[in-house]
Amino acid sequence: MDKALCIGLIGYKFMGRAHSNAWKKAPLFFDLPCNPVLKTVCGRHAEALGAFAKQWGWEQTETDWRKLVNDPTIDVIDIALPQHLHHEVVIAAAKEGKHIFCEKPLAMSSRQAEEMWQVCENRGVVHYLNHNYRRVPAIALAKRLINDGKIGRIFHWRCAYQQDWIVDPMFPLTWQLDKNVAQAGPQWDLNSHAVDLAHYLVGEIKSVMALTANFVKERPLADESSTGNLQGKARGNQMGKVSVEDAALMQVQFVNGAIGSFEATRFATGRKNSLTFEIYGSDGSLTFNLERMNELQFFSRQEELVQQGFRRILATEPVHPYTDHWWPAGHIIGYEHTFVHAVADFMEAIVSKGSIEPNFRDGWQTLRVLEAGLESAKTKQQVLL
Amino acid sequence: MDKALCIGLIGYKFMGRAHSNAWKKAPLFFDLPCNPVLKTVCGRHAEALGAFAKQWGWEQTETDWRKLVNDPTIDVIDIALPQHLHHEVVIAAAKEGKHIFCEKPLAMSSRQAEEMWQVCENRGVVHYLNHNYRRVPAIALAKRLINDGKIGRIFHWRCAYQQDWIVDPMFPLTWQLDKNVAQAGPQWDLNSHAVDLAHYLVGEIKSVMALTANFVKERPLADESSTGNLQGKARGNQMGKVSVEDAALMQVQFVNGAIGSFEATRFATGRKNSLTFEIYGSDGSLTFNLERMNELQFFSRQEELVQQGFRRILATEPVHPYTDHWWPAGHIIGYEHTFVHAVADFMEAIVSKGSIEPNFRDGWQTLRVLEAGLESAKTKQQVLL
Amino acid sequence: MDKALCIGLIGYKFMGRAHSNAWKKAPLFFDLPCNPVLKTVCGRHAEALGAFAKQWGWEQTETDWRKLVNDPTIDVIDIALPQHLHHEVVIAAAKEGKHIFCEKPLAMSSRQAEEMWQVCENRGVVHYLNHNYRRVPAIALAKRLINDGKIGRIFHWRCAYQQDWIVDPMFPLTWQLDKNVAQAGPQWDLNSHAVDLAHYLVGEIKSVMALTANFVKERPLADESSTGNLQGKARGNQMGKVSVEDAALMQVQFVNGAIGSFEATRFATGRKNSLTFEIYGSDGSLTFNLERMNELQFFSRQEELVQQGFRRILATEPVHPYTDHWWPAGHIIGYEHTFVHAVADFMEAIVSKGSIEPNFRDGWQTLRVLEAGLESAKTKQQVLL
Amino acid sequence: MDKALCIGLIGYKFMGRAHSNAWKKAPLFFDLPCNPVLKTVCGRHAEALGAFAKQWGWEQTETDWRKLVNDPTIDVIDIALPQHLHHEVVIAAAKEGKHIFCEKPLAMSSRQAEEMWQVCENRGVVHYLNHNYRRVPAIALAKRLINDGKIGRIFHWRCAYQQDWIVDPMFPLTWQLDKNVAQAGPQWDLNSHAVDLAHYLVGEIKSVMALTANFVKERPLADESSTGNLQGKARGNQMGKVSVEDAALMQVQFVNGAIGSFEATRFATGRKNSLTFEIYGSDGSLTFNLERMNELQFFSRQEELVQQGFRRILATEPVHPYTDHWWPAGHIIGYEHTFVHAVADFMEAIVSKGSIEPNFRDGWQTLRVLEAGLESAKTKQQVLL
Repeated sequence: MDKALCIGLIGYKFMGRAHSNAWKKAPLFFDLPCNPVLKTVCGRHAEALGAFAKQWGWEQTETDWRKLVNDPTIDVIDIALPQHLHHEVVIAAAKEGKHIFCEKPLAMSSRQAEEMWQVCENRGVVHYLNHNYRRVPAIALAKRLINDGKIGRIFHWRCAYQQDWIVDPMFPLTWQLDKNVAQAGPQWDLNSHAVDLAHYLVGEIKSVMALTANFVKERPLADESSTGNLQGKARGNQMGKVSVEDAALMQVQFVNGAIGSFEATRFATGRKNSLTFEIYGSDGSLTFNLERMNELQFFSRQEELVQQGFRRILATEPVHPYTDHWWPAGHIIGYEHTFVHAVADFMEAIVSKGSIEPNFRDGWQTLRVLEAGLESAKTKQQVLL
Repeated sequence: MDKALCIGLIGYKFMGRAHSNAWKKAPLFFDLPCNPVLKTVCGRHAEALGAFAKQWGWEQTETDWRKLVNDPTIDVIDIALPQHLHHEVVIAAAKEGKHIFCEKPLAMSSRQAEEMWQVCENRGVVHYLNHNYRRVPAIALAKRLINDGKIGRIFHWRCAYQQDWIVDPMFPLTWQLDKNVAQAGPQWDLNSHAVDLAHYLVGEIKSVMALTANFVKERPLADESSTGNLQGKARGNQMGKVSVEDAALMQVQFVNGAIGSFEATRFATGRKNSLTFEIYGSDGSLTFNLERMNELQFFSRQEELVQQGFRRILATEPVHPYTDHWWPAGHIIGYEHTFVHAVADFMEAIVSKGSIEPNFRDGWQTLRVLEAGLESAKTKQQVLL
Repeated sequence: MDKALCIGLIGYKFMGRAHSNAWKKAPLFFDLPCNPVLKTVCGRHAEALGAFAKQWGWEQTETDWRKLVNDPTIDVIDIALPQHLHHEVVIAAAKEGKHIFCEKPLAMSSRQAEEMWQVCENRGVVHYLNHNYRRVPAIALAKRLINDGKIGRIFHWRCAYQQDWIVDPMFPLTWQLDKNVAQAGPQWDLNSHAVDLAHYLVGEIKSVMALTANFVKERPLADESSTGNLQGKARGNQMGKVSVEDAALMQVQFVNGAIGSFEATRFATGRKNSLTFEIYGSDGSLTFNLERMNELQFFSRQEELVQQGFRRILATEPVHPYTDHWWPAGHIIGYEHTFVHAVADFMEAIVSKGSIEPNFRDGWQTLRVLEAGLESAKTKQQVLL
Repeated sequence: MDKALCIGLIGYKFMGRAHSNAWKKAPLFFDLPCNPVLKTVCGRHAEALGAFAKQWGWEQTETDWRKLVNDPTIDVIDIALPQHLHHEVVIAAAKEGKHIFCEKPLAMSSRQAEEMWQVCENRGVVHYLNHNYRRVPAIALAKRLINDGKIGRIFHWRCAYQQDWIVDPMFPLTWQLDKNVAQAGPQWDLNSHAVDLAHYLVGEIKSVMALTANFVKERPLADESSTGNLQGKARGNQMGKVSVEDAALMQVQFVNGAIGSFEATRFATGRKNSLTFEIYGSDGSLTFNLERMNELQFFSRQEELVQQGFRRILATEPVHPYTDHWWPAGHIIGYEHTFVHAVADFMEAIVSKGSIEPNFRDGWQTLRVLEAGLESAKTKQQVLL
């Protein structure tokens, strides 16, 4: 724990906060093999950056990410930026031998992703893609039950990631709705999480049929300073064209014979950050709901019929993944804890000279599926991977 | 109520029971404009038929459906047969001027369905297709809330109809798994219900992309006498080929701009008869679960944000559809009650010389969607309607 | 099934309907050892009675219950009257050798109940007290799991029976609020059900501490004809004193060492007919909610900790109590079905010359607990039984 | 925020961790009026204490609490000790002018509590009693809805605090089961929380009837070092007598006419830390479940009957209490966040020279109710307050 690991964080909005919190909190709850030092935070606006650094205890600030990447005192580059900036930063950082902790979605294309992955591998740096939901205890428990054979052969994956933050047609055209910056809408933002979980829990996908929709075509231009935390403020009356989809549906075949469906939307009125999935197999089934993220529903066909039923496992027991680091059974954890789990495992990988999942290879694979989806939505045909 | 309406029922398995119960129960709980008389029940096996007639109070039995259809004392032909027999019976009955109460799915093809609809219209008989779930009080309430503008513009329909009765690979090859008799698997059996509800609650569908799967290719041949109530018994060791799909997924576009998804399967371990749907609109949302069929979840965006939430409406108040006929608020009803609502409305339509929905036109429209789905699953392309 | 059993029903409001329905429906779904004949229905108002008889198929009507009781063609007296009339009718009927199916609560006092029980025993007639919830499949399943040792030693019983039909202070003073007719409020009406279930599932009670409350002291006098189905209409502006409690709480000790609590109220806004209970034992636990009466929640401590959780058993499988008589798994039943189960078991007891539970002995025991509660509420002391 | 506030923490087990985390985290998420400095942590075992201080960043350690209390550089004494030590420390600290943040339950008796409260008031120090659940956003929202008149006149409070950590009779005799240290069992530990919430949400209590039970009379003596986090290890085969109750039930009357019930137990198999309450009023109702602590269920009678229902408010919107400090809507928080809210409000009270609730006056009032409960359980009579 005494060895220092110096972190350079790029980005200080919603994800910058969540990452900073994780770096600070991990040493309190985990026996880490090294000591994360909040060295430098990097952003474009010096004033706001300074305030953030002071609040969160970053030792110094930097407005030029290239300087940060070239700083020899930095061990880890932590990327909390929109996706259109990931590729350039990752390539530069990997070439400097930095380990990389990168927000999702990984990149603007699978081509970019593949290069990022290859460069990291060549340079021998640890690369982690922050699909943090793999480290929800209940989801890690789902994985364990699957591995232990409790579900058997999987037939079905059914997943929806639903939000409603742009239902109001007067919600402004923030960067998430601009194809040049975001590449896609919920297909990139939300389905990237969902496909990552499907890869983790079910397996590789071999075909995709997709359907996308735009419900609101034009929106007021956004006041640029207002785009943190999924809230936005209009700049005035001027309207701009929405250039990404509002919703994206996919039907897929897995290599192992299972079939699956995905549904990602920002127009599910009443759903704030609702990620649900269902897995049905020959021996059992699992369901999960992120709004009740401490719970996993499990059905076993191995029991006497008279007492079969979906059981709600409250994944807070010491025997459950990660939970022995926190509070006694029954005391629930929240969204931010997944980031703590991620940085703890990431540090472990660095010190043990190992690797961690999901990484940029996983991110590349996910982007291939998402791209296939966008292509299918355009061609109205199934796309094979 | 004094005018007699003489019923001739064809079929006496699961659906024969459910229909018989409805005819007997409706006059007890509804003020009907006529009096249903359980005149004749028709089936192939005289002995079993006789026992059924005695148990349920049918006045007489008949083993030849043509005779029943030609019997001038019969006013209504009630068809509780597998779908491959519907077309011939309906055409014959309509030509005799009988009103028709027909189990779903309507037919083996939309071509058959169209003819059935046309003949009924030409002969001026009342034709009803028993998608009974439209008459679940909570679903009728959903329709009312939509009509009252509580949901606004609909963006999403998300529906799954999940069962698990053939997960065991040794479950035998009952008629439901034989294409010659059933035409299709859950696409016909389950998605017909789901598409009917989508038509009812959301609107017309204009395009379909579908994916089907077969998880078990061969099964033991069935002992024919064992196929009631979704249970089956194998005849011996001989295996036969499953000729229908085990699961069917669809992604659709509605004419009104909404998009939707359907998932129908007999391999959702732990789900017995689970029909769930979610509707998201600009002003509110609705969700439903058939296993808790007395409840409707409703979210309204029209309220103060601080108190918004999905509310569980227990649809048992006298102000809810159909429920004033039953018990005081909070006393729930079950599956069979939907059939009672259907026969009550059907009789009303006959006496008032009106019509009832869903009818054969609706059934035709549904089969067109289901056929488009099967075609899309084959061609791997979107099919336009 | 050919032997006729002639029924004489007294009362034709809410319970009269529920009983009539049960007599008619039982032969359709159960293989009964005899054939219930809806012979005579008895009530005070000839006109309304005649309409009821016609609707429900009672062969004849009678306005004098003594004549009915003395009618030698009647085998069973079915009592669907308010409790203040039970004692006199039961004593008379038993003396005539009639079998008795009696609505709850059994009587106005345990003294009455004891006499009713003794006379029935002496005359050798079958006596059944209609605490119908024992015959909810999920509750009968709870009993089976307890008997099978799945719960172990029981520590806790926690039960609430909550309604809200008199929250409005302008709801009129119907007979249920008049001590002369009802003897008590929810302590009699609702806690009688709850105590019966506690006796059934946990065991005998040995001490009681109770608290009652009156939230509304005066109400408009009721239009007498309006008291069916828990709805009421005021007669005018004249007010009368509410003479029964609005809510009743009890804390009890069971003979076997468990402790329990009861809560019965007509002032639980939003609860229509919500009966919930929780049972915690050394090896497992159970919970139930009448608004979702097809479900039983079961927790087992006998399993591996990692997968423990409350499971929701959908009690509709053929292996569950009573459910093989109804529909395939997953097709739920409702409130009225419990009455069908009751009459089926009652007929079985008559023909087999056996007995059935709960009977008047159980009702006597329940009233002793309820009386102890009322006494404790008055003396503010624990009352021993 | 620049002014330093120096904290001295006594105790470093479960609560020591939770408090340390709160002091560290509050400045990251709240704009505080001062800067909490983790100055000194105090405990009996120097080695374990040193490790804790290093992990959590306490500047120094101290094994004599009197020295800490007398240290002029310390502003706040934070007491994370078992209740038998609270009185002495609080009196000493208040006399030194320290502000006090004290774990619950406040003391061994209401007499102690009254003195603690009086001394603090006389010395003018801020005193806070950490019934942290008042600061669950959903509970603070419940309070706001009540204050806004959405519930109207309250009729019922129904509460259970259920755990199961000592169901196993071989669970050892930890300090929580020793009357000399703990004073009582769940009556003190769990019902103190529940009564505090009842005071907060409903009002003052005027009478109590209680029932307690002991299910396991003797247990193996505990290895003293094993009592953190509700887990325990036996020292050997020697048995000792359990001197506190295993479960405690109360029925109460509130001054405002409402009635209530409490149920606290360590024998509710399957319930880990389940605190649930229900509030029923003339205009609406509320229910809460700590295992789903981000949700509040709200029923309003003010709406159209057709759409009434219990709605699940996900209390994560920026308009909800405390939640604007955390993550976007739909991203849930956990148990530990309530401590952060508490220290933030506590610091605000200190700097503004105000006060905070619940404080030692509230604690005194709560202990009076709990003592009345123990007395009632002994005398078997109602106890008036």
